[in-house]
Amino acid sequence: MDARPIGIFDSGVGGLTVVREVNRRLPAEHVVYCGDTARGPYGGKGPEVIRQFALEIARYLEAAGVKLLVVACNTASSVALDHLKRHTRVPVIGVIEPGVRAALRRSGGARIGVIGTRATVRSEAYQSRLRRLRAGAQVEACACPLLVPIVEENLLATPIARLALRHYLAPFHGSVDTLILACTHYPLLKALIAEELPGVTLVDSAEETAAEVEEVLRARRLAAPGDQHGENSYFVSDSPEGFIEIGRDILGGPLQRVTWLADWKR
Amino acid sequence: MDARPIGIFDSGVGGLTVVREVNRRLPAEHVVYCGDTARGPYGGKGPEVIRQFALEIARYLEAAGVKLLVVACNTASSVALDHLKRHTRVPVIGVIEPGVRAALRRSGGARIGVIGTRATVRSEAYQSRLRRLRAGAQVEACACPLLVPIVEENLLATPIARLALRHYLAPFHGSVDTLILACTHYPLLKALIAEELPGVTLVDSAEETAAEVEEVLRARRLAAPGDQHGENSYFVSDSPEGFIEIGRDILGGPLQRVTWLADWKR
Repeated sequence: MDARPIGIFDSGVGGLTVVREVNRRLPAEHVVYCGDTARGPYGGKGPEVIRQFALEIARYLEAAGVKLLVVACNTASSVALDHLKRHTRVPVIGVIEPGVRAALRRSGGARIGVIGTRATVRSEAYQSRLRRLRAGAQVEACACPLLVPIVEENLLATPIARLALRHYLAPFHGSVDTLILACTHYPLLKALIAEELPGVTLVDSAEETAAEVEEVLRARRLAAPGDQHGENSYFVSDSPEGFIEIGRDILGGPLQRVTWLADWKR
Repeated sequence: MDARPIGIFDSGVGGLTVVREVNRRLPAEHVVYCGDTARGPYGGKGPEVIRQFALEIARYLEAAGVKLLVVACNTASSVALDHLKRHTRVPVIGVIEPGVRAALRRSGGARIGVIGTRATVRSEAYQSRLRRLRAGAQVEACACPLLVPIVEENLLATPIARLALRHYLAPFHGSVDTLILACTHYPLLKALIAEELPGVTLVDSAEETAAEVEEVLRARRLAAPGDQHGENSYFVSDSPEGFIEIGRDILGGPLQRVTWLADWKR
């Protein structure tokens, strides 16, 4: 039994979809969440900078006493996961491995598409992992850099969202049976994506990642005492108004204990 | 006479439009440019964070020995200009005052529209300055947060650009005679904007800002010796490949002396 919190981080607000699934599945666990809202989004930045930012936050969470680190950001998982594993002392879980396994389990013909940020797609993290776990898998990946601002600017209900999706998803028509939504923002576009690609199975990794968290906690005997009442706390690097607003929508209720930090160095 | 360089900074690559105009108008001046590519764009962030980032870069440029500071970023000019003036020892020029004066000079009926980032529009910097300089001016402002990613992702030639502009510019139809492009990225959309708003005068502030730089240098006797051959150098916080590529297009030639800095603290 281990009462310490789980640390979860993202470049912004999107990783709260992972928090929601962890809360649902593991209600006894405390969660400390970090959102790098002052410097995010990460998706268009270079790998060295993403690694540096991710490690600063990982160290912040380690110093806060977390027992496990979840990289809820696809971009950071794609380019910084090994770096974080090498430079921290707690177990580290990313979102790629769970997403890849779910896609392979659910895909009939192993014809799998991946959509994500530029940095995620360029890293080839999903593509190489899919091919390693399933020889002969047909993998197509496409960077969709406009989708994050469309979600963040709440343009989901405008024709712009549909046109952007049509633009990005055209290459997948008829060529994939499963599509991995490799960015925490994309599940919010799920209904529109399903209309563009009817019959294609959509995989978002938040649920799968929560299942992996449970597995690792059990295997390493790190689970919280069953009678513990799990609580969340949140740390962000920009002023928290926008984070609190979108966060309430994602988590289905108001966020308590939100702290704005000037930087991640303790 | 003063041989020291002029410091110009922006959240990313867009401020190079100001560098281009300064180079054209003042070929004897050295320029040191800082682009905060690791943390930009600034347009969706809160004012406190923007002030902190801007002051870090201003101090970096002061320590580099600049004689004058140009805030080429509309967002930083909108929320951080007074803060920078209070906390630095060199003269500071923003892009708002020059843009506002040009708009008032060129607008017949003083019915002026402003498009910019969320932070720029929310700050009311343009709106209040326009109203102060011209009592009775009719001012309408609209935040266009999708336009920066459309430019940065090179989607100018796609229907997405046109649809986004139609979405954002609709409120200006028939109601303004002049539109201030209050973001360094927007001049690249000028032809499309002109098609959407025929007959409306478009003002971009890069040229006007360069004229103000010349004026301040002359008034304070800070101009470079006439026989000096001005050179540019560039400092960025993310890996410089993308910056160099877009920069070449803006400046019409390859960029020399580009340095990647881990952070802005000397």
